[in-house]
Amino acid sequence: MNTYGNKFRVSIFGESHGAGIGCVIDGIPPATALDFDFIKSEMARRAPGKSPLATARSEADEVEILSGCVDGVTTGTPLCGIIRNTNTRSGDYNRDLLRPGHADYTGFMKYGKAHDFRGGGHFSGRITAPLVFAGAVAKLVLKTKGITVGAHIKRLAGICDEELNTAEITAEQLLSVSGKEFPVISDERGEKMREAIMAAKGDCDSVGGIIECVAVGVGAGVGSPFFGSVESAVSSMMFSIPAVKGIEFGGGFSLADMRGSEANDEMYVSGEKVKTYTNNNGGINGGISNGMPIVFSVAVKPTPSIAKKQRTVDFGKMENTEIEIHGRHDPCIVQRAAVVVESGAAIALLDLIS
Amino acid sequence: MNTYGNKFRVSIFGESHGAGIGCVIDGIPPATALDFDFIKSEMARRAPGKSPLATARSEADEVEILSGCVDGVTTGTPLCGIIRNTNTRSGDYNRDLLRPGHADYTGFMKYGKAHDFRGGGHFSGRITAPLVFAGAVAKLVLKTKGITVGAHIKRLAGICDEELNTAEITAEQLLSVSGKEFPVISDERGEKMREAIMAAKGDCDSVGGIIECVAVGVGAGVGSPFFGSVESAVSSMMFSIPAVKGIEFGGGFSLADMRGSEANDEMYVSGEKVKTYTNNNGGINGGISNGMPIVFSVAVKPTPSIAKKQRTVDFGKMENTEIEIHGRHDPCIVQRAAVVVESGAAIALLDLIS
Amino acid sequence: MNTYGNKFRVSIFGESHGAGIGCVIDGIPPATALDFDFIKSEMARRAPGKSPLATARSEADEVEILSGCVDGVTTGTPLCGIIRNTNTRSGDYNRDLLRPGHADYTGFMKYGKAHDFRGGGHFSGRITAPLVFAGAVAKLVLKTKGITVGAHIKRLAGICDEELNTAEITAEQLLSVSGKEFPVISDERGEKMREAIMAAKGDCDSVGGIIECVAVGVGAGVGSPFFGSVESAVSSMMFSIPAVKGIEFGGGFSLADMRGSEANDEMYVSGEKVKTYTNNNGGINGGISNGMPIVFSVAVKPTPSIAKKQRTVDFGKMENTEIEIHGRHDPCIVQRAAVVVESGAAIALLDLIS
Amino acid sequence: MNTYGNKFRVSIFGESHGAGIGCVIDGIPPATALDFDFIKSEMARRAPGKSPLATARSEADEVEILSGCVDGVTTGTPLCGIIRNTNTRSGDYNRDLLRPGHADYTGFMKYGKAHDFRGGGHFSGRITAPLVFAGAVAKLVLKTKGITVGAHIKRLAGICDEELNTAEITAEQLLSVSGKEFPVISDERGEKMREAIMAAKGDCDSVGGIIECVAVGVGAGVGSPFFGSVESAVSSMMFSIPAVKGIEFGGGFSLADMRGSEANDEMYVSGEKVKTYTNNNGGINGGISNGMPIVFSVAVKPTPSIAKKQRTVDFGKMENTEIEIHGRHDPCIVQRAAVVVESGAAIALLDLIS
Repeated sequence: MNTYGNKFRVSIFGESHGAGIGCVIDGIPPATALDFDFIKSEMARRAPGKSPLATARSEADEVEILSGCVDGVTTGTPLCGIIRNTNTRSGDYNRDLLRPGHADYTGFMKYGKAHDFRGGGHFSGRITAPLVFAGAVAKLVLKTKGITVGAHIKRLAGICDEELNTAEITAEQLLSVSGKEFPVISDERGEKMREAIMAAKGDCDSVGGIIECVAVGVGAGVGSPFFGSVESAVSSMMFSIPAVKGIEFGGGFSLADMRGSEANDEMYVSGEKVKTYTNNNGGINGGISNGMPIVFSVAVKPTPSIAKKQRTVDFGKMENTEIEIHGRHDPCIVQRAAVVVESGAAIALLDLIS
Repeated sequence: MNTYGNKFRVSIFGESHGAGIGCVIDGIPPATALDFDFIKSEMARRAPGKSPLATARSEADEVEILSGCVDGVTTGTPLCGIIRNTNTRSGDYNRDLLRPGHADYTGFMKYGKAHDFRGGGHFSGRITAPLVFAGAVAKLVLKTKGITVGAHIKRLAGICDEELNTAEITAEQLLSVSGKEFPVISDERGEKMREAIMAAKGDCDSVGGIIECVAVGVGAGVGSPFFGSVESAVSSMMFSIPAVKGIEFGGGFSLADMRGSEANDEMYVSGEKVKTYTNNNGGINGGISNGMPIVFSVAVKPTPSIAKKQRTVDFGKMENTEIEIHGRHDPCIVQRAAVVVESGAAIALLDLIS
Repeated sequence: MNTYGNKFRVSIFGESHGAGIGCVIDGIPPATALDFDFIKSEMARRAPGKSPLATARSEADEVEILSGCVDGVTTGTPLCGIIRNTNTRSGDYNRDLLRPGHADYTGFMKYGKAHDFRGGGHFSGRITAPLVFAGAVAKLVLKTKGITVGAHIKRLAGICDEELNTAEITAEQLLSVSGKEFPVISDERGEKMREAIMAAKGDCDSVGGIIECVAVGVGAGVGSPFFGSVESAVSSMMFSIPAVKGIEFGGGFSLADMRGSEANDEMYVSGEKVKTYTNNNGGINGGISNGMPIVFSVAVKPTPSIAKKQRTVDFGKMENTEIEIHGRHDPCIVQRAAVVVESGAAIALLDLIS
Repeated sequence: MNTYGNKFRVSIFGESHGAGIGCVIDGIPPATALDFDFIKSEMARRAPGKSPLATARSEADEVEILSGCVDGVTTGTPLCGIIRNTNTRSGDYNRDLLRPGHADYTGFMKYGKAHDFRGGGHFSGRITAPLVFAGAVAKLVLKTKGITVGAHIKRLAGICDEELNTAEITAEQLLSVSGKEFPVISDERGEKMREAIMAAKGDCDSVGGIIECVAVGVGAGVGSPFFGSVESAVSSMMFSIPAVKGIEFGGGFSLADMRGSEANDEMYVSGEKVKTYTNNNGGINGGISNGMPIVFSVAVKPTPSIAKKQRTVDFGKMENTEIEIHGRHDPCIVQRAAVVVESGAAIALLDLIS
């Protein structure tokens, strides 16, 4: 299932080492001006090859738009954006050696011998580039509706960023954090996170983290009870992102240890709106937005590609063996994943609102 | 959106204080024998009014099957099961007083004045009864495919159950825990949890917890990359359950603090299969099952209905005020929610497998 | 697949000789007043047992609403309506004798031995009763948007009704025809049609016909190019109705013999709107409504249940044999199907507009 | 809605005068060998610029595959094929002059001023090229399941082809007709059809026709009752094809004039199968295939682009005016549409079977 959404619908395609990757987006409001500088800057936030923290594979990730846009303005019909793969080194990959933590085994079990294992094929994190493109388009539409999406690294290698005030945060505050090259509130703690990444790299290892994402400006009444809940829509999108293994809304898992009197968000009148003093429910009650900032965090596991020796299986011979993964890999993808999480959130929310 | 699934499809309906609740299930394999004793026992696991730990509202929750079943055997065409509401006391509810942590406000913002606020209306946890019915049917089908789903209370009011060995657990072990009236591995810790519930009740308050759910017997190759991932399907279902605010697969959020060498599940040959020593990925890689037990945990917030005084809004007068919620409410729903979580998992997995 | 629609979604269930039939409707705007007299009158238009033209099986077809409606007003959450089967005579049916033109054989090939063959089971025309109920609800919503749906018998047993002026027809004219007990423009021709039905009955045979359906008041811009065309939505619904074997929009098949200069609908300015002199395109260009009345016709095959001797197969013995179908059957269902066609159109259009 | 299908899913994009057109196909079985010669020959059947019967716009219509295929073999993940537009002459089009029979007006009413009107934009028949590509892929998969799809021109400008024996036709017979450059059974009648096309062209006019399509080899039991009927799936696809205004299955509209004893397909035992003497139901009963050839016909209206003077509206000035459409247009698209109809049928059937 390569398609997400009903009203704002994104269909993705591509493999890490194929001719190209991309997506088709249906449901963009006609006459939306596509700000290509913004789109480029979003793509750059995810792009590899920028810093020693990430993979050395350098890709321009330039999107060519084939349809749905005339003179920089959307027509309302499906928009297809493609990105050519240019910097591929398929020789780095061995068909038979299953990489632990990767989808090599499950890919073969689902697709058989035809599975494109080179660089993870369709399972590659590279396929999130079209998602960021679609997310950038979604953000441009959301902007016209007064909605802003941003994220920061909440935790990385056990190091916590400062806490966001999720009941009070404004769009400006949000963007001032999410717009940073290394998106943390406290640059000091960010520095420690960077050091932890380099330390892991030095150890031929990798680290993971938690990204917290916020959407400001979503009015009350979005979403549906049960299967159409905002949480259902957002979580189903988030678990499409490779390496995401957990999600929580508002207080999330910490609510499990609270009492009701602590977890409930008490309410008050604010002008013509009803607000809550706290935001433990992450802006969502009964699956429907309540007008407070929508807040969720996702857990990103450490990059599975590590140079350290690991026990694994040679799937050709069905024998136990060992593997050391060399090549160009990220010791940490959390900082690059922040914009992917924002993009997924923008797509999911726009689909609900459209 | 009241419908979940593509191949095994469940459509739910009903309000807490309406004439009845129920669901329509499409995609049940024809000639499935419906074990009504099993279905009844599953319904009983969720049913209210059984113990001092839960609400005193007593409902028989008997399901009448209107279609799709002849002489106890499914026909393959849509099955409708309905449950009459019998024990309703709508007088307990005040239209204008918004209950913190509930969907009263979002319900009015979405549906306007027509919103059925009585007992939470369609947002009520009572609507999970049809989900348990559909889940019981799903489990009967999964059983024929060698798949078993079970859950236990991993944590309640801060008290942890013993840990499951999620890499080695068998169907028998799983059922021996999930089948308990109070589903915990350690009955001693379960006793402490019960005490914590009664203590909260004594304080006019409530508690939450974490439910861990496991599916044993799912073969490798189920699910799809990206939007069709097993995690996407299961999480979107789980956030349909009222009070669930977080989900994690395998190691989940704890993976964020691990290094890759620790988080990766190393692999070995086991007969004709490939297995992993650990199960940090919860049986899923790249969105696709790897043949290990599928493992996830959900965070259940404390019941929002508490007798303690809370600050809230009178939505009729748009004035700040206070509320004390009396009536028949659960000081904790975690123990009743375990079967709901299992049911949702069964439905989601069967839809993926069908 | 028992569910139709995305925004206005109908899930149907039931078998001819089971406990009950019905549907769940999601996406009804909240605060819609359900006019039960209207709903009853719509159900009566389809109901059997009223006249010598139709089956003698008499069913009250009273709908009980279980959810989604408080004090006659919709809540906005899913509405379930059920109809009990009361007048069943399963003894009339022989499991092994495949009835030509019916779904007995395909039912067994799809569902195996569990197929509920009694009275056609889920394939029975009786299951269109919930469709008429859902259609009546849809019509009530469409009415608030100024949209009227009506149908007449265009042709029956080779006898044509007078022609509708599909470019000029008003809602009033439409309802004055569709509201008749035997919905034809010319009652004289209607009389001949009735005679043809009785003649067929006398010959132990049956007749078919063509129903033309019109929706007045649909604004320009509804629908989408390609897979979301108005024609795609309406036709997919129409072929859900048992016995429908063809559909054409506007001039339909007759356009195939025209030249472009004749088939094209020339355009003119009418106030602030653009109208067309003719309506050969049935109110739809490029899949999208153009503001003219939406017009389509469906071909209804003659009732397959006939008392005349037919060659068939004994599926138990896999032997050639003969069959005479006795019991209570319609010599013609066209007049009863008109309201079913209208209902399907109302559901499909409301889903597109919602 | 640019996406069709659930298991075999096609998402299309593109405009007549944009950078490119194409589609993304999900659900192709892995390890399917893509026979590029076959695909090319299918594209050529639809391609313009081949003969005086069709538009002079010449497009190579070469498909570049970006993903989902390694060394000519599918991987099982989404396949994206793109076709560059090369031969565009946008100067031929006037924004304000609404072309009768086209989607100019509805396009503006849906998309507003951003509508890409050049050459019909996304509404152009040119967008059926990706459909033919997807259809060719579908046919290659269907071939492995013993299913063959073919079509012939049943009627053109009032001239009928010879009749197919739809109860007895074999795959070989079918392909021998559909494979012709001008696909008719009787070449003599085909010659008369060609003459009629040239005559219409001479008159600055155009003609339409009826295409009959057959699928041989579909086993009994495909499809579902009601909304999932084979007819629903196929018709919803067919009305995605520009210019199609009617569809009928088997006897279709002619059944409306028959009696039941004539319309019913009597049954007999043939080896281990049940067959019917006639095929008035077009291989489908109760929405489900019965094992006989699946047969349907679609009505194709005459090309709306004609050089003859027509009354229309200047949408800029909202004034009545006249139009003569010059440029490169087909006097008839029926012969080119045959492969589009086959392609749509192949996609719809494969989706049902997958």
